[in-house]
Amino acid sequence: MKTKIGFIGLGNMGASMAKNLIDSGYHLQVYNRTLSKVDELGTDSVTKCQSPAEAAANVPFLITMVSDDEVLRESAVGDGGILKTLQPNAVHISMSTISPGTSEELARLHEQSGNRYLASPVFGRPEAAAARKLWICVSGDEQTKTDARPILDLLGQEVIDFGPSAGGANVVKIAGNFMIMASMEMMAEAFTLAEKNGLSRMQVADFFSSTLFNAPIFQSYGKALAGKQYQPVGFKSKLGYKDARLAFKLSQTSEMPMPIANAVHSRLLTAIAKGWGENDWVEGIGRGVSEDAGI
Amino acid sequence: MKTKIGFIGLGNMGASMAKNLIDSGYHLQVYNRTLSKVDELGTDSVTKCQSPAEAAANVPFLITMVSDDEVLRESAVGDGGILKTLQPNAVHISMSTISPGTSEELARLHEQSGNRYLASPVFGRPEAAAARKLWICVSGDEQTKTDARPILDLLGQEVIDFGPSAGGANVVKIAGNFMIMASMEMMAEAFTLAEKNGLSRMQVADFFSSTLFNAPIFQSYGKALAGKQYQPVGFKSKLGYKDARLAFKLSQTSEMPMPIANAVHSRLLTAIAKGWGENDWVEGIGRGVSEDAGI
Amino acid sequence: MKTKIGFIGLGNMGASMAKNLIDSGYHLQVYNRTLSKVDELGTDSVTKCQSPAEAAANVPFLITMVSDDEVLRESAVGDGGILKTLQPNAVHISMSTISPGTSEELARLHEQSGNRYLASPVFGRPEAAAARKLWICVSGDEQTKTDARPILDLLGQEVIDFGPSAGGANVVKIAGNFMIMASMEMMAEAFTLAEKNGLSRMQVADFFSSTLFNAPIFQSYGKALAGKQYQPVGFKSKLGYKDARLAFKLSQTSEMPMPIANAVHSRLLTAIAKGWGENDWVEGIGRGVSEDAGI
Amino acid sequence: MKTKIGFIGLGNMGASMAKNLIDSGYHLQVYNRTLSKVDELGTDSVTKCQSPAEAAANVPFLITMVSDDEVLRESAVGDGGILKTLQPNAVHISMSTISPGTSEELARLHEQSGNRYLASPVFGRPEAAAARKLWICVSGDEQTKTDARPILDLLGQEVIDFGPSAGGANVVKIAGNFMIMASMEMMAEAFTLAEKNGLSRMQVADFFSSTLFNAPIFQSYGKALAGKQYQPVGFKSKLGYKDARLAFKLSQTSEMPMPIANAVHSRLLTAIAKGWGENDWVEGIGRGVSEDAGI
Repeated sequence: MKTKIGFIGLGNMGASMAKNLIDSGYHLQVYNRTLSKVDELGTDSVTKCQSPAEAAANVPFLITMVSDDEVLRESAVGDGGILKTLQPNAVHISMSTISPGTSEELARLHEQSGNRYLASPVFGRPEAAAARKLWICVSGDEQTKTDARPILDLLGQEVIDFGPSAGGANVVKIAGNFMIMASMEMMAEAFTLAEKNGLSRMQVADFFSSTLFNAPIFQSYGKALAGKQYQPVGFKSKLGYKDARLAFKLSQTSEMPMPIANAVHSRLLTAIAKGWGENDWVEGIGRGVSEDAGI
Repeated sequence: MKTKIGFIGLGNMGASMAKNLIDSGYHLQVYNRTLSKVDELGTDSVTKCQSPAEAAANVPFLITMVSDDEVLRESAVGDGGILKTLQPNAVHISMSTISPGTSEELARLHEQSGNRYLASPVFGRPEAAAARKLWICVSGDEQTKTDARPILDLLGQEVIDFGPSAGGANVVKIAGNFMIMASMEMMAEAFTLAEKNGLSRMQVADFFSSTLFNAPIFQSYGKALAGKQYQPVGFKSKLGYKDARLAFKLSQTSEMPMPIANAVHSRLLTAIAKGWGENDWVEGIGRGVSEDAGI
Repeated sequence: MKTKIGFIGLGNMGASMAKNLIDSGYHLQVYNRTLSKVDELGTDSVTKCQSPAEAAANVPFLITMVSDDEVLRESAVGDGGILKTLQPNAVHISMSTISPGTSEELARLHEQSGNRYLASPVFGRPEAAAARKLWICVSGDEQTKTDARPILDLLGQEVIDFGPSAGGANVVKIAGNFMIMASMEMMAEAFTLAEKNGLSRMQVADFFSSTLFNAPIFQSYGKALAGKQYQPVGFKSKLGYKDARLAFKLSQTSEMPMPIANAVHSRLLTAIAKGWGENDWVEGIGRGVSEDAGI
Repeated sequence: MKTKIGFIGLGNMGASMAKNLIDSGYHLQVYNRTLSKVDELGTDSVTKCQSPAEAAANVPFLITMVSDDEVLRESAVGDGGILKTLQPNAVHISMSTISPGTSEELARLHEQSGNRYLASPVFGRPEAAAARKLWICVSGDEQTKTDARPILDLLGQEVIDFGPSAGGANVVKIAGNFMIMASMEMMAEAFTLAEKNGLSRMQVADFFSSTLFNAPIFQSYGKALAGKQYQPVGFKSKLGYKDARLAFKLSQTSEMPMPIANAVHSRLLTAIAKGWGENDWVEGIGRGVSEDAGI
């Protein structure tokens, strides 16, 4: 009989991760707000659950990959929340992008309930999730990290340990997302400056992303920003704004002024205000820079 | 007999470039504000000149690598300037980091004098210059680019052509420098955020520079910023500030709002105001972020 | 027998307001976190209460003047909260500086409890409170505004009606506080610019505050900022930062980019990070500007 | 016979000032780039001049009120410039809004020519100029200030002495203009925040400008910004941007970071980029804030 794992959250990222676990021989107890998504997994290695609590019952590991702090908190401590059913010593592998404060709070609540919490946010787009190429940042209790490691190894290319604090890995994730959106803004500014001076945005992007900035972020987003390639919508501006808010909030709670975080927060807030929340964040950022430049 | 080239400006970059040309068999007519620097080249393949005009006399190519727009303009149009002596059809290869407006102005003046101007700014630190690993951006007249190419090939690993406008290559150089300092600021913010949350700056830097941001800029400056490694002084804050001013000025003349350029300009202006102009710009940026964070 | 009013919060502002009500013939049922403050009122027209609920029992009006949203929410809906005891139709006159969202939430909860809520934030420093010179902004239900009016008239020089929404008056209060701190920052920048150019900060301040900017804000804060008069501590930087956070949060929930709100938020966050939270906000802002300027 | 005064620059401000001098019994030697403007003065107390030099010949005082540093410098040191003709000891009363550096440079040049320079920038709109209600800031040599005083008293309601430095008064003028545009931006942000929360912009503006901010700047611009009253065009956005550039440049040369100056500079640069340079700066600022807010 297959080992069971609880799984909550079948968004773009979660669905690919769930498939990988199934392919690796696990049986998943899955809860998703939109239940029909569970059927799309198209396999009998899945049990469809009506609540987070149901997904969390009788499993050694429960993975959550949900949209934000509020959904995660509700999934954990709400009426049908996982704390109601999670068995002693079971591990909640928390992979969503959330604030470290939420991780710390949940770690305490899990401890009080006799089970365990592990912050495990990831870097990588859905394609990377599908290809088991995620970078997984973890932090928290040593034994918990050791115990969860075999599961995490099935989902990513590398697991990086950021120490013992419950929320440390979330700080790294937020810092990384901040660096990504700052890179996008800075490219949009540089390319639009070039455009206003009669140069080819794409040539400038190609040059930088093959020399000083020859890293994935600059290659993928650089091409999209240079080409004003706003379709199809991959990552929505409103999700980018959510991440910018997380960075801004962390800057507040950390008593840590971050001028560039301010700038990208403003950029994405402006995108939301202009009604571009459902548009790709390449548009939210790139078009914002262009409009301010009068083009 | 060796071919002669005029050469003006033996700073960190220029001195390495001059040596490479000598090693490749050229005889240089060199002018440098501090004349003793010419002697340090330690070779008889050099003629020490008392003025830019003297360096520019009777050569097919004249290279300038000076500190800023003002020095270059004075070298060109001043009393002992190169326009006084440059022979018909000779090419002024202008490799300094200057504003595109200065290139356009000089291109016109050279044309009026019957000779030629080629904007050829470079990317790369002095080590790259010594190793002939510079990236050289050019723009301007086609024939001039073709004629100067053999010289440029001796100085860098690649020559990238940014089209026909006199100042286009300077725009690319300024945009690139802007992206470099923006990357430094964003790393300083991210690492200090991590530090304030109990994480290791260096581990966070290593993680990013080996994954999403595995590009030279993030590896070299990332390590220095994470380690608060402010000695020895490589590139001074006041030079970084000069570049930030160029970016800001270009944003003005291009009618192109650049929020992140504003942020880095403020950071470096603050460094100057605090008296750190002679310190490495890693300190100018990194220490500024730390002090604002109260650490 | 005197009419009774409930009163919660004897801070600098609240204490003066409470005295005015007592002087006008009311008997107050007072709750304050630090109970000894109640004794300082030094009168037998006061009943010392052990909880907000006790203060709210059997009164037609209950005034709250507390430090922030969290304290107010706890005072209202907590275990010993006023919703436990407030009699039918009684009015909660909510004078604290809080977010409009909290007012809207509390208005709903009061309605569900059969009583009433009135947002009534004020402008004016403690001296103005003592002199019944506050400007009181109200918004909400018409009848409630009419009913509370006689009480409010005892506390301020003017009551301004900002319409029917539960949180409208709070928006005005937050906008006003934003304008005050923006004015302080802009004066600090202007005066320090003058100082760095060899002029007298005070003369510049006097000139502006007696001509184009001859309004109270520029006269009082202008003098303090120009004179770097940081003692005694009137309004703490951490309270200023709280107000900046309210403005920033409202800018987020209103989908409304506010560059100057960003700037003042950063200034006060920096003050907090540098450890100046207990210092007057004139220092938090003015010293911050000076230090960035290297003086 | 009437005393002669030289006068250069018949813009909105200059024309009113010239009329006042004529009404006070002076005969003006006037130069204006658009010569037909001189005829509009409609009086025989004027001599129309073909160059600044002609206007400056044989007069004890020469007033300049031109658009910017470049025009002033050209008027002074150009081929037909006033330094060519200004008689010994005559005073150049320089009333334009220019950088202190230009004043310092011109003061030196005048001294070398045996005559005198007095920085005398003014605050007030054209209506104030017409009504002799300007505030005139002066700085420089004591005797020169004393000698020019009778003329200045005919033009404004007050002459404020900012000490002995040649450019001090210009610093005050730039600081004041910065405070005005910062006030406009902060009002636009506050009113739009109110609007997005369902409040009346005008009511909020009226409240603030009759209480905490009851100063001319907030009354006049507040009404215009609240009412989105963008016609007729009084002061063009491109002139506001010019002043923002002066403030920014002074922040650079003074080594003085000014976050709010950055914000207003960006706002006006954006207005220029969007093609609103000829529109009133109330539109340049107010509409910019609104568009960013999606309204």
